[in-house]
Formats: sequence, structure tokens, C-alpha cells
Amino acid sequence: MNKLIQYSQGELIISTSGQQMYEITKDLNTWLNKEQINHGQLTIFIQHTSASLCIQENASEDVIEDILHFFKKLVPENISLYKHNLEGPDDMPAHIKSMLTQTSLIIPISNKKMNLGTWQGIFLIEHRSSSMKRKINLTLMGKPEK
Amino acid sequence: MNKLIQYSQGELIISTSGQQMYEITKDLNTWLNKEQINHGQLTIFIQHTSASLCIQENASEDVIEDILHFFKKLVPENISLYKHNLEGPDDMPAHIKSMLTQTSLIIPISNKKMNLGTWQGIFLIEHRSSSMKRKINLTLMGKPEK
Amino acid sequence: MNKLIQYSQGELIISTSGQQMYEITKDLNTWLNKEQINHGQLTIFIQHTSASLCIQENASEDVIEDILHFFKKLVPENISLYKHNLEGPDDMPAHIKSMLTQTSLIIPISNKKMNLGTWQGIFLIEHRSSSMKRKINLTLMGKPEK
Repeated sequence: MNKLIQYSQGELIISTSGQQMYEITKDLNTWLNKEQINHGQLTIFIQHTSASLCIQENASEDVIEDILHFFKKLVPENISLYKHNLEGPDDMPAHIKSMLTQTSLIIPISNKKMNLGTWQGIFLIEHRSSSMKRKINLTLMGKPEK
Repeated sequence: MNKLIQYSQGELIISTSGQQMYEITKDLNTWLNKEQINHGQLTIFIQHTSASLCIQENASEDVIEDILHFFKKLVPENISLYKHNLEGPDDMPAHIKSMLTQTSLIIPISNKKMNLGTWQGIFLIEHRSSSMKRKINLTLMGKPEK
Repeated sequence: MNKLIQYSQGELIISTSGQQMYEITKDLNTWLNKEQINHGQLTIFIQHTSASLCIQENASEDVIEDILHFFKKLVPENISLYKHNLEGPDDMPAHIKSMLTQTSLIIPISNKKMNLGTWQGIFLIEHRSSSMKRKINLTLMGKPEK
């Protein structure tokens, strides 16, 4: 039994096309499957301040729609509300919505799998209206065997 | 001196009975006390999307009440506001409140103790009205000696 | 090549003077530069419940002003809204704003540097009006070489 804790770093590039929640659970599983660390934890870090991360129910599209609607009402795209308007009406709300959600997530790993609850999926939340390429850093720490 | 970083995984099951903040600091301390890793960090991960985690002041019950009241006003239990209503008026607000708080927390450990500030306590926030059993994953990484 | 994962703990004390976002990216870089761990991840943990952490755009002062304004409107300093008023009108909003942002951040490290996006800076958010000394715990886990 190998007792050393190892770590591995990786990257995901996700293309987005407008304000939406993009599930990345499968992309993460694909990456995890190629790694040699089967037990430990995975850190997911998004290198942006106008897109963010969350863990949410991935069974119902209505849940996603209700969430996006809630945030749109809470942080309106009304330029008269903000000083920073150079990059369009969706930019400042994007920064605020990012602050209200997560830039990094940390998830326990057992037997090469994320220890997620039955309904949990990992999402990138795109807060900008135009098409973007978003960079996500992955750090896996742990051991090949338990 | 053992220089190897080790890790250990555990689980807490917390029974909840309605929308409330349940302090789990003692449960975490009990678990930490049985472990052999005295320095490092603890990750707490809740396997649900309608209950969440936070660190808050644990000295005043009024603080907790004010927080719960704030979130109830911010995310009303009014079914006309949401598309997803199958699971009752408290379900969709529960998902949104979970998004606005934390699914995972990471806490530094020194001398077998969480490095918390004087007033900090760890809470599970139950956002559903009915009684639930909530599963929390624990991952401890670090060393027996500093 | 050293394959062992090591860890190191440190502390930052940040003096604040009123409700504002204080960028601590440079303080973190100064600390990282003195450490022997060049690849891995950094955890930042604030030991308070009325100040918090976030990653945000550090290029525009207007962005910061808009963010602070948004939170001030969302969580008004109106004592009639809260039960807990002993510590002044800014105290209970400070707890709520802390809950809506982060108590801990975790950031990947490569070549002794935080893997931040072009516009990302690390901030302490002071939610209280008076001058404070805020304590931040640092935990670095990783390896000297990749």
C-alpha cells in the first residue's frame, strides 16, 4: 500500500454561449478517470470574475431556470444602477452574481469518484451574454489506494 | 518526526427538524479527537442541494434568527415565483438559499483543533420544513506532528 | 525529485478602517515567496464573522464601489430590521454580508504563484464601520518540485 499523498493538476476549457448554467460533472469524471489518484479531494477553481461555480440539483431544468431568474431579478441589468458600465449592462451584474456564488469548490473523492449526493451536479454559471471560453483549474490530492 | 502527509475520511449524519441553523462544531470536534492527524486542514462537504453549510457567530440566538429571517424575505416561499413547485413551497427557495451559502467549508487544524476565531461556529443550515437526515463528508489532510 | 507533499501554515494580520474591500494579493505573494512549496494549493481562512473574503476584478475601482453599494442596499443598516442591535447598526448586516460571501478561499499554486486569471485579485471585505485588526490563516500544501 502506497501511503504517500500525491497531487495532480489539470485544466478544463469550457465554451459558453450566453447566461446559463453548464453542467461539467461529466467533464470532471472524464478527467478523474485518467488520473492515478483514487482517494482524496478535488479542487475546482475558475479563473474568472464574471463566471462562477456551484453545486446544484441536476435533475430538473425548471430548478436551473428558477435559479437564473432569481439572480436576474436580484441583480438587475440596469445600467443606471452601476458606475462600471463600459463593458455592457450584463458585466457589473456578472461580477456581483459571481460574488454571491463560488470561485472554487472542493469535493471529496472515493474510489476514483466524486462523493456527490444523489441529486448533486457541478455547474459553471456563465453570467455574461456573449460567447466566452472559460478556464477551470483542477487540483487533485490524495492516494492511489485508501 | 513524521513528515508524510496523511488523510482520513469520515461522515456525519445530522437529523434536522425544520428550517433552522444547527451548530455542528461539537460533532466535528468529537470526530477530530479520534483522528491521528493533528495539523493540517479539514474539509466539510454536504451531500445535498437544499441544505448548506456556513461559519457564523455562535454566541447569540438573535443573530441566527435575524439571518434566517433575512433569507426568508430574500427568497420568499411563494409558489407563484417559481416553475419548480412539485416538492412544496419551501423546496425551490431551499435550492436558492443553498446556492447563496456553502456546500463545502475548509478549516485549518492546529494541535488537533480547528483554528476558529473566538465567535466562529460551524453550522448546517436546513432550508426544508420537514424532518431530514443530512449527510456530511469529512476529509482531514495533514500530519500527526507539525 | 522530492515526491512528498508538505504543508506550511502562516498568518496575515490586516488592519482595516471602515467598510471597504482591501486587496491582499500582494501580501499573499510576499508570504508565498518565502515558502519552500512551489506547487500545490493555498487555503485562506478568515477568523471572523463580520469580515469575509472574495476573489474579484482588481482593475477598476468602480467595480468595487458598485459591489459595496449592491450589498449595502441588499442588507440595509436599519436597526428596525434586526433583533441583534447591541453592537451597532452595521453589526447584523456585517454577519449577513459575511454569509453571502466567503470565509475561506482555496487557490491553485504553480511555480510559486497563484494560478489567478488576468483580472482576479484576492480581497478582504470589511463589513464593520470602525477600525479593526483581522486575522487570516494560511495553509499551503504541495511540493517543492512538480
